[in-house]
Amino acid sequence: MTSERQKMTMDNLMKIVNSVYNQLNEGEIPVTDLPLRSKKNIEFDPKSNVWKYGDMMTNRTCKTVKGAMMMLRTLHMIDFIDEMIKTNRSSTLREMYYLSEGWGNGKFTSQDESDLLAEDLEIISSCMREDFKLKPEDDGAKVYGDITITEVNRKGEKKTFNCRDVGDSGYGIPFNVEKEKVTIRSSNAKFIVAIETGGMYDRLIENGFEEKHNALLIHLKGQPARSTRRFIKRLNEELKLPVTVFTDGDPWSFRIFASVAYGAIKTAHISEYLATPTAQFIGITATDILNYKLPTDKLSEQDIGALKSELTDPRFKDQFWVSEIEAMLQMKKKAEQQALAKHGLDFVTDQYLPEKLADLGIRL
Amino acid sequence: MTSERQKMTMDNLMKIVNSVYNQLNEGEIPVTDLPLRSKKNIEFDPKSNVWKYGDMMTNRTCKTVKGAMMMLRTLHMIDFIDEMIKTNRSSTLREMYYLSEGWGNGKFTSQDESDLLAEDLEIISSCMREDFKLKPEDDGAKVYGDITITEVNRKGEKKTFNCRDVGDSGYGIPFNVEKEKVTIRSSNAKFIVAIETGGMYDRLIENGFEEKHNALLIHLKGQPARSTRRFIKRLNEELKLPVTVFTDGDPWSFRIFASVAYGAIKTAHISEYLATPTAQFIGITATDILNYKLPTDKLSEQDIGALKSELTDPRFKDQFWVSEIEAMLQMKKKAEQQALAKHGLDFVTDQYLPEKLADLGIRL
Repeated sequence: MTSERQKMTMDNLMKIVNSVYNQLNEGEIPVTDLPLRSKKNIEFDPKSNVWKYGDMMTNRTCKTVKGAMMMLRTLHMIDFIDEMIKTNRSSTLREMYYLSEGWGNGKFTSQDESDLLAEDLEIISSCMREDFKLKPEDDGAKVYGDITITEVNRKGEKKTFNCRDVGDSGYGIPFNVEKEKVTIRSSNAKFIVAIETGGMYDRLIENGFEEKHNALLIHLKGQPARSTRRFIKRLNEELKLPVTVFTDGDPWSFRIFASVAYGAIKTAHISEYLATPTAQFIGITATDILNYKLPTDKLSEQDIGALKSELTDPRFKDQFWVSEIEAMLQMKKKAEQQALAKHGLDFVTDQYLPEKLADLGIRL
Repeated sequence: MTSERQKMTMDNLMKIVNSVYNQLNEGEIPVTDLPLRSKKNIEFDPKSNVWKYGDMMTNRTCKTVKGAMMMLRTLHMIDFIDEMIKTNRSSTLREMYYLSEGWGNGKFTSQDESDLLAEDLEIISSCMREDFKLKPEDDGAKVYGDITITEVNRKGEKKTFNCRDVGDSGYGIPFNVEKEKVTIRSSNAKFIVAIETGGMYDRLIENGFEEKHNALLIHLKGQPARSTRRFIKRLNEELKLPVTVFTDGDPWSFRIFASVAYGAIKTAHISEYLATPTAQFIGITATDILNYKLPTDKLSEQDIGALKSELTDPRFKDQFWVSEIEAMLQMKKKAEQQALAKHGLDFVTDQYLPEKLADLGIRL
């Protein structure tokens, strides 16, 4: 039994196959067009309030052996996706890469290639990788707090539970969080704190922060997976919860915030599904490092390069980010969120978060 | 309210404090003795069937500034642990490191130092880090299958659930899995498969392996945390379940198996709590790479060094390991467990695991 969504996915993928077939049939060398996927080609879409690909295009042609090989892989992958949809299976991106070993000609030489092709197919078909039944490895992102969820398990059974009742680690966000899989039932939470590190997520739970202030805590586990970002967006839209993001204070963490709020460069074609434009940054900022006298580490060469690159990233061009990035470049220091422990285990919940949230207009 | 166990922990830590105090009082320079913690000094303990530290000792003396500083840190840390136990708090190892910023003299220069000191305290006091309320960051290890558990949450409430009913990701193993926290209620499982990668864990769940064969699946998430190894040991002892370990085929994965079965070098003082001596290795072995014609990667210089080092590791000295390690050094290749996908998504559950488990005497 295939759903409407699955039928649409296959229809859209078959359009690619038909286009290649028709071009060959008419004696033409097959070509497909794609938006250019780089920082140069992302622009702000005022309608959806997120950053998306612009008009710059690139194309894939079979004029070269490399291009023809790419086309062969594309057709192989569509064939595999078709089979997975028909048999209700799914596959990790890593398995997808290894499966290509069985193709002979056209096998991938690295997983980067197969991952990129899956993303290209998303763009050409206007579907999502989740529709293709391709998934990343579970990354361990979690939710803790008063929210009731129904998840349809692999056997089609519905399981309903509150995320406070499934163990101290919380509810593990699955790779597919679309409505056919996960229903958000109810919550008494007033706002969301999405947290980069597990140590800080645990700290907020232990200090009773979520209970005292009706917060919903989400452990991002570093750069958040698509499903984590999608889940945050659904919570924001369906429960009207303001989203705040609490990370380390370094250039990589700024990108974590950007991917939650503005969309990631790699997935700009589906930013409207993944990004939460109203998400606000709680820190750690360069200013926090000074104000709270946090223990720091020296910026590495890579850190400095990443900060400079952010100064040319359109997502970071507002005054807040420009001044924070420049301040960090000037002080040449970064700090982790757990560095707040310098002032004791309660400092983060008694002082830091109340002050920072008040700045953002969230009163505890 | 402190438990018996907490009282014992503090008594043992206070013995260290008293010993330092008494030595100072008698005009002596304080010294503490510690077992040498390296590969040279682990030996097989036939009583508990695991590898533990031998008789080689080292000592910590205050004769040098460095040694005196170390003693200062030790006393600071014991003071902090005392406070956490009294106030029923806990702290991540990272927070412990940052807290030392507030000590002035004696602050740690890296987290390695504070982690090592916590392990030293375990050895001197015969307690566990969990008793000290020090925890690592949650690493995302999970359990899926038919097992019912009661967990006491942070508010002291008991929550009982079956690990099949908490979402597809499974039950997240908390950092403390001792009996006061986690009760193993019942299970219909016949054996355990502990799996290195999330992709393979998901594959076995999707293919219905746990249900069809009454298996309990545990996602190790790479080198398993102490709580994951402790939980496996409890399942093995309390439910009498045989344990099998399924990893990538490379030297680092062999060490994952060794840490589950024999104990890790770093934690040899608590091997009898953490190691499951009857655990068996399912692969991927060098022989599997040949037999199943798996896609491989070339061994790196680091891989070759690690394999050679394993040949002098007493935990790997039996015939099986010596011949597998030598075979891998000879073929100069390694393979991931997800490489089995070369033969299709069902190959691992239809052929590989039944064959390998039968070799180990587990008939499906």
